[in-house]
Amino acid sequence: MKALVYDAAGKTQHWNDVPDPTILRSTDVIVKMAATTICGTDLHIVKGDMPEVADGRILGHEGIGIVAQVGDGVKELRVGDRVALSCVSSCGRCEYCRQGLYSHCLDAEGARGVGWIFGYMINGTLAEYVRVPFAENSVYKLPSTVSDAEGILLSDALPTGFEIGVQAGQPKPGDVIAVIGAGPVGLSVVMTSRLYGPSKIISIDLDDNRLKLARDFGATDTVNSGDADWFDQVMALTSGDGVDVAVEAVGIPVTFTNATRIVRPGGHVANVGVHGRPVEFALNELWIKNITVTMGLVNTSSIPMLLKVVASHGLPVDKFVTHTFSFDQVEQAFDVFQHAAQYNALKVLIH
Amino acid sequence: MKALVYDAAGKTQHWNDVPDPTILRSTDVIVKMAATTICGTDLHIVKGDMPEVADGRILGHEGIGIVAQVGDGVKELRVGDRVALSCVSSCGRCEYCRQGLYSHCLDAEGARGVGWIFGYMINGTLAEYVRVPFAENSVYKLPSTVSDAEGILLSDALPTGFEIGVQAGQPKPGDVIAVIGAGPVGLSVVMTSRLYGPSKIISIDLDDNRLKLARDFGATDTVNSGDADWFDQVMALTSGDGVDVAVEAVGIPVTFTNATRIVRPGGHVANVGVHGRPVEFALNELWIKNITVTMGLVNTSSIPMLLKVVASHGLPVDKFVTHTFSFDQVEQAFDVFQHAAQYNALKVLIH
Amino acid sequence: MKALVYDAAGKTQHWNDVPDPTILRSTDVIVKMAATTICGTDLHIVKGDMPEVADGRILGHEGIGIVAQVGDGVKELRVGDRVALSCVSSCGRCEYCRQGLYSHCLDAEGARGVGWIFGYMINGTLAEYVRVPFAENSVYKLPSTVSDAEGILLSDALPTGFEIGVQAGQPKPGDVIAVIGAGPVGLSVVMTSRLYGPSKIISIDLDDNRLKLARDFGATDTVNSGDADWFDQVMALTSGDGVDVAVEAVGIPVTFTNATRIVRPGGHVANVGVHGRPVEFALNELWIKNITVTMGLVNTSSIPMLLKVVASHGLPVDKFVTHTFSFDQVEQAFDVFQHAAQYNALKVLIH
Amino acid sequence: MKALVYDAAGKTQHWNDVPDPTILRSTDVIVKMAATTICGTDLHIVKGDMPEVADGRILGHEGIGIVAQVGDGVKELRVGDRVALSCVSSCGRCEYCRQGLYSHCLDAEGARGVGWIFGYMINGTLAEYVRVPFAENSVYKLPSTVSDAEGILLSDALPTGFEIGVQAGQPKPGDVIAVIGAGPVGLSVVMTSRLYGPSKIISIDLDDNRLKLARDFGATDTVNSGDADWFDQVMALTSGDGVDVAVEAVGIPVTFTNATRIVRPGGHVANVGVHGRPVEFALNELWIKNITVTMGLVNTSSIPMLLKVVASHGLPVDKFVTHTFSFDQVEQAFDVFQHAAQYNALKVLIH
Repeated sequence: MKALVYDAAGKTQHWNDVPDPTILRSTDVIVKMAATTICGTDLHIVKGDMPEVADGRILGHEGIGIVAQVGDGVKELRVGDRVALSCVSSCGRCEYCRQGLYSHCLDAEGARGVGWIFGYMINGTLAEYVRVPFAENSVYKLPSTVSDAEGILLSDALPTGFEIGVQAGQPKPGDVIAVIGAGPVGLSVVMTSRLYGPSKIISIDLDDNRLKLARDFGATDTVNSGDADWFDQVMALTSGDGVDVAVEAVGIPVTFTNATRIVRPGGHVANVGVHGRPVEFALNELWIKNITVTMGLVNTSSIPMLLKVVASHGLPVDKFVTHTFSFDQVEQAFDVFQHAAQYNALKVLIH
Repeated sequence: MKALVYDAAGKTQHWNDVPDPTILRSTDVIVKMAATTICGTDLHIVKGDMPEVADGRILGHEGIGIVAQVGDGVKELRVGDRVALSCVSSCGRCEYCRQGLYSHCLDAEGARGVGWIFGYMINGTLAEYVRVPFAENSVYKLPSTVSDAEGILLSDALPTGFEIGVQAGQPKPGDVIAVIGAGPVGLSVVMTSRLYGPSKIISIDLDDNRLKLARDFGATDTVNSGDADWFDQVMALTSGDGVDVAVEAVGIPVTFTNATRIVRPGGHVANVGVHGRPVEFALNELWIKNITVTMGLVNTSSIPMLLKVVASHGLPVDKFVTHTFSFDQVEQAFDVFQHAAQYNALKVLIH
Repeated sequence: MKALVYDAAGKTQHWNDVPDPTILRSTDVIVKMAATTICGTDLHIVKGDMPEVADGRILGHEGIGIVAQVGDGVKELRVGDRVALSCVSSCGRCEYCRQGLYSHCLDAEGARGVGWIFGYMINGTLAEYVRVPFAENSVYKLPSTVSDAEGILLSDALPTGFEIGVQAGQPKPGDVIAVIGAGPVGLSVVMTSRLYGPSKIISIDLDDNRLKLARDFGATDTVNSGDADWFDQVMALTSGDGVDVAVEAVGIPVTFTNATRIVRPGGHVANVGVHGRPVEFALNELWIKNITVTMGLVNTSSIPMLLKVVASHGLPVDKFVTHTFSFDQVEQAFDVFQHAAQYNALKVLIH
Repeated sequence: MKALVYDAAGKTQHWNDVPDPTILRSTDVIVKMAATTICGTDLHIVKGDMPEVADGRILGHEGIGIVAQVGDGVKELRVGDRVALSCVSSCGRCEYCRQGLYSHCLDAEGARGVGWIFGYMINGTLAEYVRVPFAENSVYKLPSTVSDAEGILLSDALPTGFEIGVQAGQPKPGDVIAVIGAGPVGLSVVMTSRLYGPSKIISIDLDDNRLKLARDFGATDTVNSGDADWFDQVMALTSGDGVDVAVEAVGIPVTFTNATRIVRPGGHVANVGVHGRPVEFALNELWIKNITVTMGLVNTSSIPMLLKVVASHGLPVDKFVTHTFSFDQVEQAFDVFQHAAQYNALKVLIH
């Protein structure tokens, strides 16, 4: 089959011929991919930022497809089922999985305690066929009313924004939610925030194009954090109190610090961004502020819940797909996604 | 009357004659103090660490007494009622009070948004008489079965450990709770942890005397953090997973960092310590760990709950009182508390 | 002033001249009513169903107005403030109020343990002026962006549906919520359910006109409970599992029983209806079903939250007002509301 | 092997020779029983109260043993593991299992939607060997520090009291919990209540011997419900307010009604009893009381949590075992348990 393979030496990737995957354990299935997409993490890997990824690894951890083969121990799935793949592979049995902490599955192949393995520790979804471990806990049947464009969002982008941004921030109806960063994950937070009846969703970013997009995704207010008075603008939107929930969806120190500044006493800071270095945390000022700070890798335990919302067309999820390619154009898709700002790209659909 | 007055110039305090307090607002009461105590914060003030405290301020924010006079607007209290004073004065009406965030009361005298004002923004409890603002929301009637020694713990030390350490950490029955720091507040966390049925309470401190005390207060295990292998000792007590709840009760960067290191994925870090400088927060490692970090000033909203527990003798709270003095020995009490380690002092009862 | 006065002998009511109210306690305010409305309970009183209501009582427990006079102990309100009145009067101090259980305030005038007293134990809101006890805990300032029609819904109908129907039912995003009864309170449940992101809101009623209205208020599906196969219709909407949350908003045995039949294992039954007799509760079948059943009088503790939603125009609350009258047409308004079905009336606005 | 077999015709049971069980599905294990016990439900079956139980069924749904054989699909268990068997068999995969509602597992053999099948729909644990379906989700490894007497309580009696009585009642520290019924399950509620720091645990029963036992299990107060003033006695223990949590652990209408009478406004009624007929539910009085009523079959999802508590000797669980027998004395054990009152029997240990 063909697959997008990581070339460690060349710090790049190619659409190559590789062997078809086979069932390795009785709980595996093989899925023929119908649609997949590219995530910012894939860009980090090809740049060589994650040297633990082996040369020759098939990239990708998102997508939907048709079950083509099932292991002996798989009861709930049949050949022909149309499914969404979770970006997290989890056994469903270990101490962490029983708590819904699939992100820390103790049995995930190749990485004890980390559930994300597709396109990282094992071969991924930018391929014609994919072997899915622990299939019964890691794929979700899609009703026919869910389109391919909606389905690929369920693998990672939508649950990440929803679980780590929105649910962790525990918004109540009428709350003001601020989302710092309007990339795909920040916009996922913006869109899924609407499920909790906030009175305001404030999108904060440096790029006015992104802020315009944020309004289309559900933001009621926007603030350009390049403005000298951006902080005062946020305070003015909350009568000077600060926001109830501040979501960090960038992953650098300044945006985390800003989240702790704009949150009101008693509020929540939900960190969604992937950070590359420590941040200075002003506990000398914050110890008295009665705030809660959360962070984490997505569990994808919310996929069944989000699937019901998407199937009832409760959120306009297909807005995320800005570009569509066929599988043999995957290198071109990669190029567009690598220059997302230039192409105004959010998610690319590859089918 | 006599009171312990802060001498800003001399960076000290004296048991002086001062005018009796009077009712200033209809919601005030005057309380004749029966017993009071000294907190670490009082020591900071007399050292000059908190220059916002005015010269001549009467110190202290804990204690119990008898209502001696009530304002016109006070319905629920009568002269002669024996009451515990909350260290936090809160109006009970503002947006924050309605949420139970008394620590951020918007109407507290002298300090919008900070409920702690006794011995700080207004005269405090190390005196024969105290004016208590917002009395109906700030004092609690004591049944006769609660002793003076038990009562003074309800003002601050017990609710601080319970609310900011235990409740914020959301322990479940069977959990392992680690408490870093075995001073009065750390020991309050240890003791009140028992209300949630943990399987282990690990006390961590540098001082073996304190650790011995911690066992007496309810710790099932102790680790001296001066040991080279202290981290491994904690891990060994949790089968290598880390603790479910890590409570920081010291207030310096290294203990906060240690709390984030010993907590298991999905666990809680509850910061109780008062910090004087920022900490380095390893978000580059922690972003993936799905932990929750909390911090805050006590609301004392748990006093009614703790009062029921104390009145039914559910916790041996009187263990906290190591030394007893009369009011005219208050300078001596201060001296003992300033050299707590030397005297093996926890809380001093002044009556 | 003029007011709508209950005539116990005649089992009717009249728009009569009565003395103006005066401040009785320092925590009272007098409000000049700007708009008010009639509730089903008012109809019960005039029919003589509630003999504990004294002859000559001014009716009504909903409305908005302008503060005309304030008691000495009132700090947060000033003459001229435009406010919504809660239907529940609560001291904010007692054990129940501190828990947010304003409906069981121990100090409410005339009725220990019952917070609803307006138009019942004390004079009510169908009048030109109203004395409001415990004003700081019982009225809410309205921003100018909230219309009169929106404001009067905040007194009772909207918080009752939201607190006792929706919040008590604990819906999660993607859940299926069924609401039995499509009167004003049932429709309030339907509308405020939208704040929790359900995948389906099923309205169930005997009246097709009401069901049509329910769709306009947010129901995604409707079932006429007069249909022989109504139960199967509900099951078909939930793949045979039953609904996640079943809300009873009628108040008779058969609708309560139906709610317990359509709820899925592990689901919630939220009773909002006011019942006049006991119901047979099939514990022999239900003990194994792991369901939660809730019931209660509104606390109106959600008014601040709903006010934020309404002020941001997050819900089309003004749809509830079907008819508008002036104060001197109040008897006509009563007539229309008494024959609500005939006039297709939901709420009448009297200003 | 030998097993206790239900004789439908004779409405009795015998310790008979039967074929050894074999692995039927890849997710099964065979357990050699080390200790087992008898439950009130077993008595109902032999009386013929549950005609759906097939003639020849091996009885019993509790016990501990050693894994003797494992199916191909079982990864987490090995021959020789000492395990406690859950009384509920659950797939761990279906919609209900993912929510922790193991009691409503959609895939449990022989009974869609009911997780309890041992000794009911499939052969049970009163045998030398038992086939355990869905073994990875249905047995729990026991540390050597847990005795046999402690282990057998984990199958059913302890989690039933804890989950359906205590957890469902949501007690807070300082609460007053009343438990109606002091049989094995009622006493399990009494004992596990201690994990939530209540100020009072009131045991209510007709039998003074049982009440004496209840004090030994942790009750702080007892009331004999045969006393004419039993209701007043309960009220006197709660200052007239009613209890925070009322647990019904009998299963007849009067005890359920009593639970709704003694609970305070805003409190919880947790029904644990298995009811044989409907109850009259006074919604006409209770609709205004803001109470929550729960009921259900145990999920045993709390076994890992309780196991930690038991392993740390946090509860004196072995007090439940009043009589010990060997396997060949099982008929005698049955006789003692059938006449529990006469023998002062709670749980019988059969090993």
